[in-house]
Amino acid sequence: MKWRRDGTRVFIRLEMGDEVHPSLVQIAEREQIFGGWLSGIGAASEVELGYYDLERKDYDRLRMEGDVEIASASGTLGLVDGRPFVHLHAVVSDRRCETRGGHLFRALTAATLEFVLLVSDSAIERTRDEATGLNLWRV
Amino acid sequence: MKWRRDGTRVFIRLEMGDEVHPSLVQIAEREQIFGGWLSGIGAASEVELGYYDLERKDYDRLRMEGDVEIASASGTLGLVDGRPFVHLHAVVSDRRCETRGGHLFRALTAATLEFVLLVSDSAIERTRDEATGLNLWRV
Amino acid sequence: MKWRRDGTRVFIRLEMGDEVHPSLVQIAEREQIFGGWLSGIGAASEVELGYYDLERKDYDRLRMEGDVEIASASGTLGLVDGRPFVHLHAVVSDRRCETRGGHLFRALTAATLEFVLLVSDSAIERTRDEATGLNLWRV
Repeated sequence: MKWRRDGTRVFIRLEMGDEVHPSLVQIAEREQIFGGWLSGIGAASEVELGYYDLERKDYDRLRMEGDVEIASASGTLGLVDGRPFVHLHAVVSDRRCETRGGHLFRALTAATLEFVLLVSDSAIERTRDEATGLNLWRV
Repeated sequence: MKWRRDGTRVFIRLEMGDEVHPSLVQIAEREQIFGGWLSGIGAASEVELGYYDLERKDYDRLRMEGDVEIASASGTLGLVDGRPFVHLHAVVSDRRCETRGGHLFRALTAATLEFVLLVSDSAIERTRDEATGLNLWRV
Repeated sequence: MKWRRDGTRVFIRLEMGDEVHPSLVQIAEREQIFGGWLSGIGAASEVELGYYDLERKDYDRLRMEGDVEIASASGTLGLVDGRPFVHLHAVVSDRRCETRGGHLFRALTAATLEFVLLVSDSAIERTRDEATGLNLWRV
């Protein structure tokens, strides 16, 4: 993975095989960034998407076969228990340009993934919310 | 709804039941923001999407059943007749991660919705365009 | 096409018939911008999407019929051989709000297209990568 910080923006390129979430966490740690907004496009493999069932307080999961285009990935960088935490949603598309979407659990970079990270001046903590069962942004 | 302004960026979290458009308009009014770019992800209910038919100058509408993930929401904050106006498009996904998309007429926040608003230095007015029947950005 | 630059952000509106990629390249040239992030929404015609086959090192292509909503378009502005180069992925939706997505080869603006361009302080060059057969970002 490679990145360049321009003040409050970080331009990022993940390279083939880079796992998305830990790579972005590592960049955040190296740059000491604890809050922000992420947008990305590119291609990925081993993509796992999810849908949150609020009643069950758990996710339904879908594993995509093969490489897919990341038509959009967006979300937030926050802090959970003092460590950077990446929360992404994505829309992916296959060879026929058919799409699936949802919470992005996991993805490996295929040909390339390009991201921008818009850096918040201060940390945005996520803490457990009992009503939803999720770690929510405390902006 | 909660938000924090970092100079020209506003990090926003909408809470369960918050209606998206009026909530964002209210934040814009409170922060005196009259132009900008919005990106968001999360989950929503009572989602209504649309497709604009340019010949008929009217929208076809689709009402989604139940909760959906907001895989992406993006769009603009402008000013119509002196009041903030939010124009969003969205891609939503269901329990099977199947997607629908288009103009976002309406959505209520389900578990959470996270947005960033990038603030323009000055107002961006939208005015009526006779050729399209839409209020268009006057950047 | 119309645009307004606010420091490191450019708010853009493409007008009916404007072809997306050359219009954005022209704005980048006029503003002397050689790196950045793009997000957009709106409506388009003559949309061509693609899926990159890494084995074949070539794209499968899909041409959309009629006007579609651009539910999201995002990507990067870089520099190839000294000239601005726009790399966009998109999710589009039809009259029934059904979606397709992928690499965006081509689109003409229908009613309107609204973009923001977040400007990098310095050029981001894309150069040929033999392993993938693509011009990749050198951030």
